[in-house]
Amino acid sequence: MTPHKHVIGIVGGMGPQAGNALFDRITALTHASKDQDHHSVILMSLPSKIVDRTAFLTGSIDENPGYAIADIICKLEGCGATVVGIACNTSHSSAIFNVIMSCLEKRGSKVKLLSMPEETCRLIAENYPRVRRVALMTTNGTYRTQLYEQMVNAGGMEAIVPDVEFQNDVIHRMIYDPKFGIKANPAAITDQARNLLRQAITFFKKQNADAIILGCTELSLMISQETIGEMVVVDSTIALAKGLIREAVVTKRSPVQPTAISLNA
Amino acid sequence: MTPHKHVIGIVGGMGPQAGNALFDRITALTHASKDQDHHSVILMSLPSKIVDRTAFLTGSIDENPGYAIADIICKLEGCGATVVGIACNTSHSSAIFNVIMSCLEKRGSKVKLLSMPEETCRLIAENYPRVRRVALMTTNGTYRTQLYEQMVNAGGMEAIVPDVEFQNDVIHRMIYDPKFGIKANPAAITDQARNLLRQAITFFKKQNADAIILGCTELSLMISQETIGEMVVVDSTIALAKGLIREAVVTKRSPVQPTAISLNA
Repeated sequence: MTPHKHVIGIVGGMGPQAGNALFDRITALTHASKDQDHHSVILMSLPSKIVDRTAFLTGSIDENPGYAIADIICKLEGCGATVVGIACNTSHSSAIFNVIMSCLEKRGSKVKLLSMPEETCRLIAENYPRVRRVALMTTNGTYRTQLYEQMVNAGGMEAIVPDVEFQNDVIHRMIYDPKFGIKANPAAITDQARNLLRQAITFFKKQNADAIILGCTELSLMISQETIGEMVVVDSTIALAKGLIREAVVTKRSPVQPTAISLNA
Repeated sequence: MTPHKHVIGIVGGMGPQAGNALFDRITALTHASKDQDHHSVILMSLPSKIVDRTAFLTGSIDENPGYAIADIICKLEGCGATVVGIACNTSHSSAIFNVIMSCLEKRGSKVKLLSMPEETCRLIAENYPRVRRVALMTTNGTYRTQLYEQMVNAGGMEAIVPDVEFQNDVIHRMIYDPKFGIKANPAAITDQARNLLRQAITFFKKQNADAIILGCTELSLMISQETIGEMVVVDSTIALAKGLIREAVVTKRSPVQPTAISLNA
């Protein structure tokens, strides 16, 4: 018999492919010889319910997507999920993530919500202890809130970020351009997006980065190699998948302890 | 504003990659320039709750997986799903599918459950009206129940199936071998599985098939081309994804009408 495992919940839809990719990584990272060996996973991808995270963080819209995300987490918990991951880095910015945590607390949620950036930094610390200079590729929303920057620096490493113009015109655009961006063409990455990626890689190489964090889930759809030149590629989707698997096989645990909030508060 | 759409439910876990692949096809087949344009999808992948379908159909176990599948459909409906697909062909065999439909009826379910083989035959009829000789690649469970054979023949086409030995030693083994089969290695298809696929293709070519139905969802993980030589590849996962999208954008519909049962009863 397969031992009892926790049910993993995934908040997807930001975009749908990112949630799908997280699920895919969980499956790929699980040792199984038959269907029944795999983890129980519930993925809720309700994209029309969640407004754009970067649009909120940059002040274009007032609605905080954290409320809808908390609703979905409670729905996942209602279906039996005990450990949950949100397949979107930008949602982990404090202005959104604090609202999520506060909603969950108010509703008496017992779910263990992992933090994608925390899991990403943990993956570096556990696997690449020599990494010092860490390049960050994120959306403008994550960039502006310095989510990864603070966490990387707090971990004793040095965050490398471009200036605002390069961030917007190259990195954010590669993800968000309505015509050629990854979100608009996730199944067939465009040449324009690839060109912007090359520009970003060249920039970070010149900055002597040891590692490059794919700090937006859409980037996982575009980059699958483990290294680019001398730089280690650290995929936040893989990091969260590993965290969810770790938590799903824990049979006894201490009371629920929300993570990640302290660094962003 | 994005127009209201139905919530699509997916019963996954048979195996997990097949459910994920169905979700992936829905996303890829949806025209969207931003996250919010995509369909609402809930995927429940609870593999340890659903016993092996072929093991039941071939008499190795007594437990009918249809009960667990019906439970999951009701759970999906409880979360708001209005149209549901099961990402597993073998589950559509009458001995399982009739139990599912009967459980749903008893519980007063209002969900529209699509039939994967019906959608597959519909896709052929709508897109390839000249196809006459249709090769079937399925598990032993589906093979034994003649699920696709009956449906293909009823549609005025001719089903081409191998003898029992070839079916078991080549096609079923490619999917189920505990060491090198697709279910055991979905993320990195083995050379042995590819060799068996080549044998199957050669066999069906010799039989002058016009089309080849990927009648097991695991096969969608291995074959992505639209044609093999002169044969049209008809992927049951894509067919079901198209059906779910079609139903999800319908705003008004007649009362729930269970499908597929008549042909298998």
